[in-house]
Amino acid sequence: MPVAAIDDAFVLSEIVGRVLAIEPIDQQTFEVRVALAASTIGNDPGQLVNMLFGNTSIHDDVVLYDVEFPAGLMEAFGGPRHGLGGLRTRVDAPRRALTCTALKPQGLPPDALARLATRFAQGGIDYIKDDHGLADQAYAPFAARVEAIGTALRKSRAEQPTRYVPSLSGDLDRMRAQISVATAAGIDTVMIAPMIAGFANFHALVKEHPQVAFLAHPSLAGAARIEPTLLCGKLFRMLGADAVIFPNYGGRFGYSPATCRRLATAALETRGRMRPSAPVPAGGMTRERVAELLEFYGTDVMLLIGGALLAAGEGLVEATAAFVAEVQGHAYGSANQP
Amino acid sequence: MPVAAIDDAFVLSEIVGRVLAIEPIDQQTFEVRVALAASTIGNDPGQLVNMLFGNTSIHDDVVLYDVEFPAGLMEAFGGPRHGLGGLRTRVDAPRRALTCTALKPQGLPPDALARLATRFAQGGIDYIKDDHGLADQAYAPFAARVEAIGTALRKSRAEQPTRYVPSLSGDLDRMRAQISVATAAGIDTVMIAPMIAGFANFHALVKEHPQVAFLAHPSLAGAARIEPTLLCGKLFRMLGADAVIFPNYGGRFGYSPATCRRLATAALETRGRMRPSAPVPAGGMTRERVAELLEFYGTDVMLLIGGALLAAGEGLVEATAAFVAEVQGHAYGSANQP
Repeated sequence: MPVAAIDDAFVLSEIVGRVLAIEPIDQQTFEVRVALAASTIGNDPGQLVNMLFGNTSIHDDVVLYDVEFPAGLMEAFGGPRHGLGGLRTRVDAPRRALTCTALKPQGLPPDALARLATRFAQGGIDYIKDDHGLADQAYAPFAARVEAIGTALRKSRAEQPTRYVPSLSGDLDRMRAQISVATAAGIDTVMIAPMIAGFANFHALVKEHPQVAFLAHPSLAGAARIEPTLLCGKLFRMLGADAVIFPNYGGRFGYSPATCRRLATAALETRGRMRPSAPVPAGGMTRERVAELLEFYGTDVMLLIGGALLAAGEGLVEATAAFVAEVQGHAYGSANQP
Repeated sequence: MPVAAIDDAFVLSEIVGRVLAIEPIDQQTFEVRVALAASTIGNDPGQLVNMLFGNTSIHDDVVLYDVEFPAGLMEAFGGPRHGLGGLRTRVDAPRRALTCTALKPQGLPPDALARLATRFAQGGIDYIKDDHGLADQAYAPFAARVEAIGTALRKSRAEQPTRYVPSLSGDLDRMRAQISVATAAGIDTVMIAPMIAGFANFHALVKEHPQVAFLAHPSLAGAARIEPTLLCGKLFRMLGADAVIFPNYGGRFGYSPATCRRLATAALETRGRMRPSAPVPAGGMTRERVAELLEFYGTDVMLLIGGALLAAGEGLVEATAAFVAEVQGHAYGSANQP
C-alpha cells in the first residue's frame, strides 16, 4: 500500500508498520527491526503469522529472525497448558530428562504397531510418539491404531507409566475427532505439526482440550526462512506446545549446535507467566550420544531416539532399557552433585 | 527409519519410497526423482504435503520442485469447482482477461472500505478482493465489513456485476462462519491463504461450499522452499483454488518471468478433468503494464492492480475505469484478429 495514498489519521499513526532500525550485520546482510501494531493480529494465530511473514516470506532474501511479543498477546495465546513440568508429572519423573521414541515404519497394521509399543514400554521408555508419517491411512486407521496401542499399554501401566502420543492429521474436525478417540482410550498426550495444521487450528485444539498435552512436530517448518528458534521455541510454545520436537545437531538434519542451544533456551526461558516447553532434540539420535546430549542440554529435555532403537530388532527391549538407564543414571548422578 | 530394520514384506514392497533417478543439474545441484506410495496420503491434503515436504523441508539444501500426481489423487481432491470459466461467468466476461483490485489499507472502518469498494465498482472492475491483511480486527470486523461492502455493491449491481471477495481468517470454524456471513450477504467468492489455513482446512471448505469460488493467496508460501509453480499452480489448484494469486515479475517480489510463465501454464493446462484456475499476477502492478501483461499471459488471466489504483486518490474511479478499458480494449482487439 503506497503510504502516500493513506489519508486516514488513525491508520497512519496506529496501523502502519514502522522501521525502527537498520543495522548492517555484514557486507550483504542487514538486521531490520520493524514495529507492527498488535491490533492488526486480532488475537488470531493465523493472522499473527500472516502479519509477521505473510508476503514477506515470498522475498528470496528475507529471513524472519525474531519477534518480541507484547505481554497481552502472550497472555491471550497462553502458552503450554502443561509444559515440561506436566510432561514430567505424567510419567513420575520429576527431575531427570525424559525419554521418547517413535513408532514406525508406516505401513504396519495396528497390531504390529501395538506390539512394538509394548516392547518400548517393556524397555521403560516415557513417551512413544507416532512417526509423523502415521496419519489416517487405510493400513493403520487412526482409531484402530489408537485402540490397539492404548489397550496394549494399559495392560502394562501398573509397572510403567509409558505414554502413547498419537499424531493428529486432517482438518480441524478430524483432529477433534481424533482427540476424542484418543482420550476415550485413556490417552492424554498428542502430537501435531502446526505448520501443516495451521496455527489457528492448532491453537483452537489447545484451547478446547486443556487436559491434553501437545507435542509440536516441525514438519514443513523449513529451516531456511523462519529462524527455528523463533518458530519452534517461541511461536509453537506461545500457541501451547507442551514440547517442541526439533532436529538436533549432528543428526540427519542441518541445525547447528548454536541453533539447537538457542531453540532449547527459548523453549525453557522465563517469559511472563508462560510455562516452559520441553525441548525434544531428535532426528537420527543414538544411544551413544545420550551422555553428550545431557551434557549439552542438561536434564530439562526430552530425548527422542527412534530409528536407532528400532534397528535393534530382536534386541529392541534391551536397547530401549539401556537408553532409559543411561538417562536415569546420568540424572541421578547430576542431582547428587553439589 | 533404517530400511534394514523393516522386516515387513508389505512395507518394503509397497510403502518405502524409492529413488528413481539422480541427475546432475550443475556442479552442486542434483535433480532427484523419488516415488512415494499414494496409499501413504489417505486422501488427506495435510498428509499430502507432510509426505511431499514434511521433514525434507528442514534440510537447508533441498527444494521441492515438482510432483506428478496419480489420476486417482487428482480426482479425489477434485480441483477448482468453478475455475477460470466460472469466474468469467460471474462477471459476464466470457473471453477477455478479468480485472481485480485490493481493498486496503487495513485500519479503515467498514464504511470507509465500502466507499472505496463502491468507487472501484463505479470504475467497472470485476473483482475487489480484501487485502490479505484484512482479517477480523476490531477496527473492521469481518461481519461488519462484509455487510457494509455487500450492501454498497448490491446497490450498484444493476449496472455492474462487480464481486467483492472477502478474505477468510482464523481456524476452520471461524472460516466456516465467515463464509456463512458472506453468502448471506450475497457474496459468492472468497479468498484464503492455504499455507496459513492448512491444506486440509482449505480443502474442507472447498468441499463444503461447492457454490463458492476460492481465490488462493500466497501468504507464507515462500517460507518452505516449495517451487511456486508446484505450490500455487498445481497444489492449490488441485485442492480447489478457482484462481491463484502470485507475485508477478518486475513488481515488489522476486519471481522471474520464467517462473511466472510456468506457474500460469500449470494453473491453466489440461490435467485430467480438472478445471483451469485463473492465474492472478499481482504485487506492485500498474496500469502502464497492462498491455505488456496481456501480451505475456494472453487473456486467460485475472489482472490485479491494488496500490497503484488507490494511489490515484480522488481520481480512483477514473484510474479504475482506465484499467478496465485497457483490458477490455485489448481483449476485443485480440478476439477480432484472424
